[in-house]
Amino acid sequence: MTTAPIFAPRGSEHDVERGAALSPKFDADGLITAIAIDADRGDVLMVAHMNAEALARTIETREGWFFSRSRRRLWRKGEESGNTLSVAEVRIDCDQDAVLIKVHIAGDGVACHTGYRSCFYRSVPLGRTVSPETELAFDAAMPRKGQSG
Amino acid sequence: MTTAPIFAPRGSEHDVERGAALSPKFDADGLITAIAIDADRGDVLMVAHMNAEALARTIETREGWFFSRSRRRLWRKGEESGNTLSVAEVRIDCDQDAVLIKVHIAGDGVACHTGYRSCFYRSVPLGRTVSPETELAFDAAMPRKGQSG
Repeated sequence: MTTAPIFAPRGSEHDVERGAALSPKFDADGLITAIAIDADRGDVLMVAHMNAEALARTIETREGWFFSRSRRRLWRKGEESGNTLSVAEVRIDCDQDAVLIKVHIAGDGVACHTGYRSCFYRSVPLGRTVSPETELAFDAAMPRKGQSG
Repeated sequence: MTTAPIFAPRGSEHDVERGAALSPKFDADGLITAIAIDADRGDVLMVAHMNAEALARTIETREGWFFSRSRRRLWRKGEESGNTLSVAEVRIDCDQDAVLIKVHIAGDGVACHTGYRSCFYRSVPLGRTVSPETELAFDAAMPRKGQSG
C-alpha cells in the first residue's frame, strides 16, 4: 500500500454532507462501521468494521474486506468459509461515518458464522419492560446451513 | 430509571450467540450500533447509536430512541423534525453488538436530517483506485424533502 493519502481530508460539515468528496470518518481505533445487505433481496446480512485499507480494497477489488477487532487483522470475508462477498455497490452516509455495501454471497449463501443467512436471527419482544429475563425469539424461517460449532 | 440491571449479563460466546438471553455488548463509550430499516420496503435508512437507556426505551415504548454522541444526550428521533420512528421489530446480531430496528417513519417520511429519505444517498465508484479525487455519485432517484440547511 502507498503512504499517500487514500481519501480526501475531512472538510466542513457542509462539505462532508453535501459534497462529492469521499472523506470517511474513522473512529479512535481507525475503524468505520460497514453494513452488508443482499444486493437482490435487500435484507441486512451483517455488520462489521473496516479500516482504511479494508475500505479501499473493497472499493477497488469489489470483494468484501473488513478489519477483525478480535484478531486485529485485515480479513477477506469468506476466506475460510468460502462465503465471500461480491460487492455490487458501496454507499456512504451523510456524515461519512458508516458505509453500506450491497453484496452477492458466494459459497453456501450464508453470511453469519453461526450458519444463519443473516446475523440478525433473533428478535426482542416489544412493549414489555426489559429485564435480565427478557427472552429473544429465533427466526425459524431464516435459511441456515452448516450449523458448525 | 431503575438502577437494577436492565439486561442479562454477558455469558460465554456460545451463550451470547446461541442463547435466548438479551445481553447486548456496549462499547467503551457505553454505546451499541443501531441500524434502522423501513419496515415495509426494507431499505436502510440510517445508522445511529444507542446507550442502554435508549435501547430499553426503544424496546419498551416502540419509539426510536438514540444517544447523540455530539450532543452527549438521549435523543428521541424526530423530536424536532417530526420524523419519529414507530418501531415494528427489534433484532440483535450474533455477538449482540449491533441492533436492527424495523420502523415506520412519521412526518414527511424522511430519516436523514439532510432531507433525503435515507442517509445513504451517495455511492462510491467501484473498481478504480481510491484517491482524494474520488467522486461520489448522488442518488437522484431518492425521495427528498425540505432540504433544510
